[in-house]
Amino acid sequence: MEKLAHKFTYGYYILTALKKADNLKTRDKDYIAAGTVNWVSQISFSPKIFSVAVAQQSDLNETIDYSERFTLHVLSTEHQDYIKTFAEKSTIEEGKINGVPFNKKNGEAIIENTIGHVTCKVLKSENIGDHTIYFGEVIDEVLENDKEPICTAHIPIEYSKEKAEI
Amino acid sequence: MEKLAHKFTYGYYILTALKKADNLKTRDKDYIAAGTVNWVSQISFSPKIFSVAVAQQSDLNETIDYSERFTLHVLSTEHQDYIKTFAEKSTIEEGKINGVPFNKKNGEAIIENTIGHVTCKVLKSENIGDHTIYFGEVIDEVLENDKEPICTAHIPIEYSKEKAEI
Repeated sequence: MEKLAHKFTYGYYILTALKKADNLKTRDKDYIAAGTVNWVSQISFSPKIFSVAVAQQSDLNETIDYSERFTLHVLSTEHQDYIKTFAEKSTIEEGKINGVPFNKKNGEAIIENTIGHVTCKVLKSENIGDHTIYFGEVIDEVLENDKEPICTAHIPIEYSKEKAEI
Repeated sequence: MEKLAHKFTYGYYILTALKKADNLKTRDKDYIAAGTVNWVSQISFSPKIFSVAVAQQSDLNETIDYSERFTLHVLSTEHQDYIKTFAEKSTIEEGKINGVPFNKKNGEAIIENTIGHVTCKVLKSENIGDHTIYFGEVIDEVLENDKEPICTAHIPIEYSKEKAEI
């Protein structure tokens, strides 16, 4: 039987953050971090605010801290493969993150063919336990299509980190 | 087409909080608050910490603030009716909250026949936007059964408050 904590339901999201190159002669030097996240929740209607918890050993944190922004992409059931693709350290080449096409828009890395994305400006962040929680106010919200979102009811989270720690 | 914010996935939980009677001659005077919540997320593995966002106009806040604890019960697909039952202001009588049986255990109100519950000690709370977010460390975790949790993929949230505000 699963643990009770595994009975809590989450969506699957790809978080991206973009740190602009210090040398602006070429935008190719922008640093982009991307990763699969589950621990995401809206926490306010007005203003519209989301929270996301990011593991402190992740390489996402530094990039979010620097840019003070993050973008959450909502995955559809068609992109189950992205969960693993973005669980690895990101490799950026030729307009692709880990082989998945993206565009730069308003200083953010936007992954193509998700249900849509919200870009959030960080209001506050806190280290709590083994994660950093970011509170971000939505500054851009784009719904691309009406596909079905994927969630842990379809695909259980692989709690490998948790298992390793216990 | 739905808004993107409605494509984020959440579980359905019943939050309870119990404020002990000032006059301890009778425990019948304990004040119990209960409500349906969705904006719940684990945010740390070790220690195990959950966050929950509660509307600031809710009657849950005062009771959580006073007791510095809250309990989250995970609803199964069998208890879809509890979503509405606990969306109303709570009525406590004869060992029942809104007609649903509960027990008192370690100073908490435990609703029967859910998948299970976690009781959390509040580490911190913050008013952000129109909600209060509580971070609670798990001090008790009970898995009752292995039933399927209900989530917004089964039953979309009725965003009535949001609609009223916009």
